[in-house]
Amino acid sequence: MVEPTSLPDNKFVVLAQSAPATLMGRLLRKFWHPVAPADTLKAGSAQRLRVMGEDLTLYRGESGRPYLVAARCAHRGTELHTGWVQGEEIRCIYHGWKYDGTGQCTEAPAEGPATSAKIRIAGYPAREYSGLVFAYLGEGMPPAFDLPRKDEYERPDVLIFARSQIWPCNWFQAVENSMDAVHVSFVHHAGGVGPFGQIVTQAIPNLDYSETEAGIRQVATRGPGNVRVSDWTFPNCNHIVTPPLNEGEPWIHRGIWNVPVDDAHLLRFTTYIYRSRGHEKDRETREYWNTHSRYNPAEHHDALMQRKEFPQEPILQLTQAQDYVALVAQGAIADRAHERLGKSDAGIVLLRRIFWRELEAQAAGKPTKAWRKLNHALDLPTQTPHASAPA
Amino acid sequence: MVEPTSLPDNKFVVLAQSAPATLMGRLLRKFWHPVAPADTLKAGSAQRLRVMGEDLTLYRGESGRPYLVAARCAHRGTELHTGWVQGEEIRCIYHGWKYDGTGQCTEAPAEGPATSAKIRIAGYPAREYSGLVFAYLGEGMPPAFDLPRKDEYERPDVLIFARSQIWPCNWFQAVENSMDAVHVSFVHHAGGVGPFGQIVTQAIPNLDYSETEAGIRQVATRGPGNVRVSDWTFPNCNHIVTPPLNEGEPWIHRGIWNVPVDDAHLLRFTTYIYRSRGHEKDRETREYWNTHSRYNPAEHHDALMQRKEFPQEPILQLTQAQDYVALVAQGAIADRAHERLGKSDAGIVLLRRIFWRELEAQAAGKPTKAWRKLNHALDLPTQTPHASAPA
Amino acid sequence: MVEPTSLPDNKFVVLAQSAPATLMGRLLRKFWHPVAPADTLKAGSAQRLRVMGEDLTLYRGESGRPYLVAARCAHRGTELHTGWVQGEEIRCIYHGWKYDGTGQCTEAPAEGPATSAKIRIAGYPAREYSGLVFAYLGEGMPPAFDLPRKDEYERPDVLIFARSQIWPCNWFQAVENSMDAVHVSFVHHAGGVGPFGQIVTQAIPNLDYSETEAGIRQVATRGPGNVRVSDWTFPNCNHIVTPPLNEGEPWIHRGIWNVPVDDAHLLRFTTYIYRSRGHEKDRETREYWNTHSRYNPAEHHDALMQRKEFPQEPILQLTQAQDYVALVAQGAIADRAHERLGKSDAGIVLLRRIFWRELEAQAAGKPTKAWRKLNHALDLPTQTPHASAPA
Repeated sequence: MVEPTSLPDNKFVVLAQSAPATLMGRLLRKFWHPVAPADTLKAGSAQRLRVMGEDLTLYRGESGRPYLVAARCAHRGTELHTGWVQGEEIRCIYHGWKYDGTGQCTEAPAEGPATSAKIRIAGYPAREYSGLVFAYLGEGMPPAFDLPRKDEYERPDVLIFARSQIWPCNWFQAVENSMDAVHVSFVHHAGGVGPFGQIVTQAIPNLDYSETEAGIRQVATRGPGNVRVSDWTFPNCNHIVTPPLNEGEPWIHRGIWNVPVDDAHLLRFTTYIYRSRGHEKDRETREYWNTHSRYNPAEHHDALMQRKEFPQEPILQLTQAQDYVALVAQGAIADRAHERLGKSDAGIVLLRRIFWRELEAQAAGKPTKAWRKLNHALDLPTQTPHASAPA
Repeated sequence: MVEPTSLPDNKFVVLAQSAPATLMGRLLRKFWHPVAPADTLKAGSAQRLRVMGEDLTLYRGESGRPYLVAARCAHRGTELHTGWVQGEEIRCIYHGWKYDGTGQCTEAPAEGPATSAKIRIAGYPAREYSGLVFAYLGEGMPPAFDLPRKDEYERPDVLIFARSQIWPCNWFQAVENSMDAVHVSFVHHAGGVGPFGQIVTQAIPNLDYSETEAGIRQVATRGPGNVRVSDWTFPNCNHIVTPPLNEGEPWIHRGIWNVPVDDAHLLRFTTYIYRSRGHEKDRETREYWNTHSRYNPAEHHDALMQRKEFPQEPILQLTQAQDYVALVAQGAIADRAHERLGKSDAGIVLLRRIFWRELEAQAAGKPTKAWRKLNHALDLPTQTPHASAPA
Repeated sequence: MVEPTSLPDNKFVVLAQSAPATLMGRLLRKFWHPVAPADTLKAGSAQRLRVMGEDLTLYRGESGRPYLVAARCAHRGTELHTGWVQGEEIRCIYHGWKYDGTGQCTEAPAEGPATSAKIRIAGYPAREYSGLVFAYLGEGMPPAFDLPRKDEYERPDVLIFARSQIWPCNWFQAVENSMDAVHVSFVHHAGGVGPFGQIVTQAIPNLDYSETEAGIRQVATRGPGNVRVSDWTFPNCNHIVTPPLNEGEPWIHRGIWNVPVDDAHLLRFTTYIYRSRGHEKDRETREYWNTHSRYNPAEHHDALMQRKEFPQEPILQLTQAQDYVALVAQGAIADRAHERLGKSDAGIVLLRRIFWRELEAQAAGKPTKAWRKLNHALDLPTQTPHASAPA
């Protein structure tokens, strides 16, 4: 694994990478990333994952604690997720070699303890937060679990829901989409107009982007009552607010993480944070989630891309489908060498400038920025329906 | 895009190509080609196409006029067919950039007119004829729309139907099949014998091929009442007559265009030209078309190739399925270096000789032949059922 | 086709190969291999096959005799299985060229006998044995049909059933699995425990492997009443006994052949030899086979690999599914360069040593071993349920 010591001539190429030996892969591995929605990993079960070009086994011990180790048994290379979780360890289906959550082999039944003591596979720290299992895939000690935290997620009176989808495009397209306030005026009017589209009109916003201690603060102003702010956290997470299904209900906070599977696939995690409205209303919210959240635009690819058949449900389906079409229609890896950026791409320009700055530091062996949680409470204003356009 | 200046040592390779930078790609781009059946493109709608290795957006303006432009928006590379047709223009889903049918950007909402005026994507002339949308993908002014025209298609008393299918094989295999009268005696007896098979017996024909001002005239004689003539037009269109469903009805004229999608896929356009038989009979003909024409052999690949389950309908399904099996069974790109041609392949030999002659002229920068519509009315004789074999 | 004259530095690579120009491909072609279950090839029908990287046409003449010839017609490269079997010959769909079972062209209808006499495609000896069609794909005269024969298969009082499946992994993984007695204690307890799992406990066996005149004799001892012996025949066939569905019934002999399709796919043939128990019981056995044998783990890939949904039927489905998971979970081609073998892999070590010895002889142009049928009756002992573990 030889890491490059400078950026390549085509600086766009490095933005889309994430594998271990790449500059971006090394930079991304300095951060905690979500790897699965917590409720998809039952106690005592295992899953196969591919994250940033690495094949992994995610399992949950019988205690409920999550662990992340390499995909394959050291013995004959069989994928461990096909085996058995026993206690806090996982046993290979083929010859019963057993590993703990650090990747240490603890038993090789037909060989004995002298063998197992010498065997170790990759193991990564994992933990849960805000409905997601996070992991640290870098070397050495993980950073404090600070950057992903948000006050809103930790309030006692919220319901948190989380899900993931795999989309057939590169992760950086989705990150750029987070820094692109103009797209809302077009993409989120495709295939119908949910509350989000109704409230954020098709007017072109005035834009303001500024680097923060956590990432980028994005402000899009479409008029006096229509100022959208999003709090983007380096390297791949956005935090926005979106309108509720019915007027008068509280707005919904959303976290969006765009994690690379490999260069051509994206793990898209979305969390929905609802303020509690009492037992009965919360039960309705849970039912609504259970009914509508399983929609995955990748399973409706042709309908969306060729026949423009968009889902009707506005909160959990339509906006996902709209973003899916815009991002996947850029191709598996967008051809940035032939794009034509303009003044309205200011967020994307800032985003890339920051990434290239960090990647250059990484390549030169210099310290990269010590990103940290915002040191002030963030106000993400809501919008008024049909607010007027900016001057 | 560097064009070769001579044919490669393996002259077979160049026959199967069609991408812009290839010799064949440049030669093909001197002609009008069908790109879609006219009735699959509703006013105000758009499709993504791949033709001769190029990705394209075909759309029809609200006026009904067809336009062909590049697949992707110049801004961030999103495929335009996912956007909106507005008037005679198409707007990108991502940030609303709008293009007219020549590829000129007419609006970049968040940028302004100084930007849009400088933006242009590829745009190609398109027009309708004989139930198909044709386009000219070459450089400069298109040739007069003359070569694709046939008197039969322009009679006032005909019903014209058109469809397309994508087959998983190279286009030149299908072109060669047009110049191969012997295949009728075998392929069109596979899986059942429709009227075509019954009338053209399994007897081996005497063959005659001659170059015309439009392409190649093909004559296959199986006996006194069994002379088949087809009028092949350079570079990829055949015109034949086939027997009707019921004796006594007029024979059906058919146009067959074999347009490259890419090296391994073929867009096969077929038109069926029926002489009108009065209002009621014509209604029946339309109903018959609507009932049976949607069959696509590519959707029945395994049934046809492995289980020999052929469709029963003889006119619109069986003969298509039979040709599909013969051509796809040659492989994605037929291995011409190992074939064993004989005297019965005279049509294929002439066809290749003409193509190589034109490609050599193309490579040397000399003029290629000025193919033009036949300057005389063509007589395509019908056959008598069970006519005797040639002497 | 240039054959290497020595083993490559990475000796693992050669183990997984089988194409004609490879050392392993040449070695394997010195033996008869099964290519299809006999009952899948009806008289007068043809199939396309891929075996050891070669594309082939398997057909059965109207007399019932099987023939194996090249996949494609010499004329224009069309796959022959799409054509017609006539008598003992096969005719191409495209222009009717006809071939006999040796690959000799016997008719080229539009060319004449002077042409057909000069045309020959590959043709290989084929014959039936024990419910399977075998073929010899090597050069020159085939060896006597001796090595595949077993006394048990030739008893007058047995019912023989045979089937094949294509699995998405390399053939040599499956051969190694045959020489791996320990896997039984783990793999065959995954997803449930059929009679096989119940009788062979999870205890780790004492192992003994020895080379025979036919292949390798494998003995796994788990206790006094629990000694499993298998008779493995070079290069890719195992013969084992497995317990019946109900106690008191005779044990079932099984033949397992692992034939390469290509480097990433395996043709797995399994035969089940039941001792006859009288007319009525045999009818029940046939019914049981017809009901349960069509299960193919490859058609349940995700259910087995991701969701651990194993079939319930223990004899014909569960053990197949368990082996499928273990072998396919090693990847398309197991990464042997990074494995960690131990003392319990003694069978695999012996197996590879024998293969490398034979491959070195093959590379040096020296004689390879003259493997022959065991010259003594083989005793494959049955086990007692819940026998005690070895000391």
